[in-house]
Amino acid sequence: MQILKKYKTRFEEYLQNNPFTGTPSELYEPVQYIMHLGGKRLRPAMAMMGYELFKEDIEKALPVAMAVEVFHNFSLVHDDIMDEALVRRGKPTVHKQYGDNAAILSGDVMLVLASQMITNLGDTDLIPPLIRIFNRAAIEVCEGQQMDMNFEQREDVTIPEYITMIGLKTAALLAASLEMGAVTAGADQADVQCVYDFGFQIGIAFQLQDDILDTFGDPEVFGKKIGGDIVQNKKTFLILKALEVADSKQRQRLEELMNTPTEDEKEKIEEVTNLLKSLDIPAFAEAEKNKYKKLAFDSLNKVNGSNSGKAVLKELAELIVGRDI
Amino acid sequence: MQILKKYKTRFEEYLQNNPFTGTPSELYEPVQYIMHLGGKRLRPAMAMMGYELFKEDIEKALPVAMAVEVFHNFSLVHDDIMDEALVRRGKPTVHKQYGDNAAILSGDVMLVLASQMITNLGDTDLIPPLIRIFNRAAIEVCEGQQMDMNFEQREDVTIPEYITMIGLKTAALLAASLEMGAVTAGADQADVQCVYDFGFQIGIAFQLQDDILDTFGDPEVFGKKIGGDIVQNKKTFLILKALEVADSKQRQRLEELMNTPTEDEKEKIEEVTNLLKSLDIPAFAEAEKNKYKKLAFDSLNKVNGSNSGKAVLKELAELIVGRDI
Repeated sequence: MQILKKYKTRFEEYLQNNPFTGTPSELYEPVQYIMHLGGKRLRPAMAMMGYELFKEDIEKALPVAMAVEVFHNFSLVHDDIMDEALVRRGKPTVHKQYGDNAAILSGDVMLVLASQMITNLGDTDLIPPLIRIFNRAAIEVCEGQQMDMNFEQREDVTIPEYITMIGLKTAALLAASLEMGAVTAGADQADVQCVYDFGFQIGIAFQLQDDILDTFGDPEVFGKKIGGDIVQNKKTFLILKALEVADSKQRQRLEELMNTPTEDEKEKIEEVTNLLKSLDIPAFAEAEKNKYKKLAFDSLNKVNGSNSGKAVLKELAELIVGRDI
Repeated sequence: MQILKKYKTRFEEYLQNNPFTGTPSELYEPVQYIMHLGGKRLRPAMAMMGYELFKEDIEKALPVAMAVEVFHNFSLVHDDIMDEALVRRGKPTVHKQYGDNAAILSGDVMLVLASQMITNLGDTDLIPPLIRIFNRAAIEVCEGQQMDMNFEQREDVTIPEYITMIGLKTAALLAASLEMGAVTAGADQADVQCVYDFGFQIGIAFQLQDDILDTFGDPEVFGKKIGGDIVQNKKTFLILKALEVADSKQRQRLEELMNTPTEDEKEKIEEVTNLLKSLDIPAFAEAEKNKYKKLAFDSLNKVNGSNSGKAVLKELAELIVGRDI
């Protein structure tokens, strides 16, 4: 995580200096709560890195860094209501702590506050393009979340559909974070497009790595319970690929397991994990992830940005597709 | 409603020509559903009227008219979840029809779509000021909704606090609708401020009239069940004023009624209504409403806009504080 440390420190300082206070306090307290639950601050770091490709004074990127982090946390607040999740980063989720109504309304105000941070930028010319990027990504995240919910009800999800879904739900915002940093630094349109492509492709790799770690990760490093996706019968890349390459008997057993509410968690995780291993799914997933990593590096190589800035993004990409993020 | 008809017709036509379609359909269908439940289209009309004060080609105001109507409907979708309301304009509410999760997520995307309509305007210079007005009003609506929820738990709400709450929850968006129309027409800052003030003050009068009609209105004309606020123990202007002017015995009885879940609706409505009448509350409410109407007209008189445009707004104001909207 060394590469992220500098950006995280700078961002946390900015967050401390810009608290979410306002009236009525019942509206703003949940915002302050979720924003201070911590996390890697990956999106703010990417906004700053996108800026740093073209200019050095990265404090200029802090308002957009904050905007993308506030938006990301808004999406966590509302997703946690929908998923009935009770714990986030080891603490009660916002709706568990403050109730569903407060979580809905505080989430709403976060979505507007994120946009407002962009309109507070001194350089008025930057506002229209940045708001356009922000709104497009925000809409895509909603579309991705809806697709994800639809998949829970469907038996015939394909791998291309899954990639489309994670592109919308996860990669679009990572890409927009980088893009907004680049636009804030005044990058030209061709470079902005390549930066976006890099962010989008590495975002797909990020989610595939998340799928891999959720089943095959080291619980000490991953930070979440291993096997959560299996327990929730989530149709991740691993499962969809397994359904594709399994013989009919294996497919039948996997579908049976996926269609049954989990009774013995440990037993189910073990059986599914062993099945995935026997089908060589970890290797398929690594190959898919590396395909997107390669695309991402190709995009980054086209950017006319500083060598030091590109080196930082390459290191970030290695970290994302690696083992400890 | 004659005055509104021209604007409503123009808006409905625009709405027909710009349907909310997109993928996945589960996200966009609830948007299309709520946007076509009808209504007076008061906010779009006000956006067009704000434009018409300064320029004649009102079709230029249609994108901002749509933005404020989409935002207003977003707030209805999320408020109806929070209030557990089952019926809206004679039809099932969005969460009743599509489920809570779809209502949360479709509401979220509406908030972004409203902002996106503004960024789609051809004149880029208009985008920063319009987005700033939109975001400020959106934040105020959230603050007003939270204050309203807080009041349910409080016994000591004052009339000034109530006026602040309805200013945020209702008047801010009506004012912003007019303001966005005026800004789109290129009005200067002093005029924009007076237009906003008019909209805000008439917005307060609008909510006070709504309070009056909810208890003393003609059910045929009002369109909602009379006495709904009394059944829900809502602390409206009528109740707060009654608590202020009542003698100790009357106050005790009113507090008792307000703190008891409603058993016999008809009986409770009758008792509270009679108490309000005996305390002359309708006259107090009329006086308060007319105070804001007077302030609104004073603001409108300061605007350097067309006489025909000002005449339309005066007619609208009379309609709003009158009996049949």
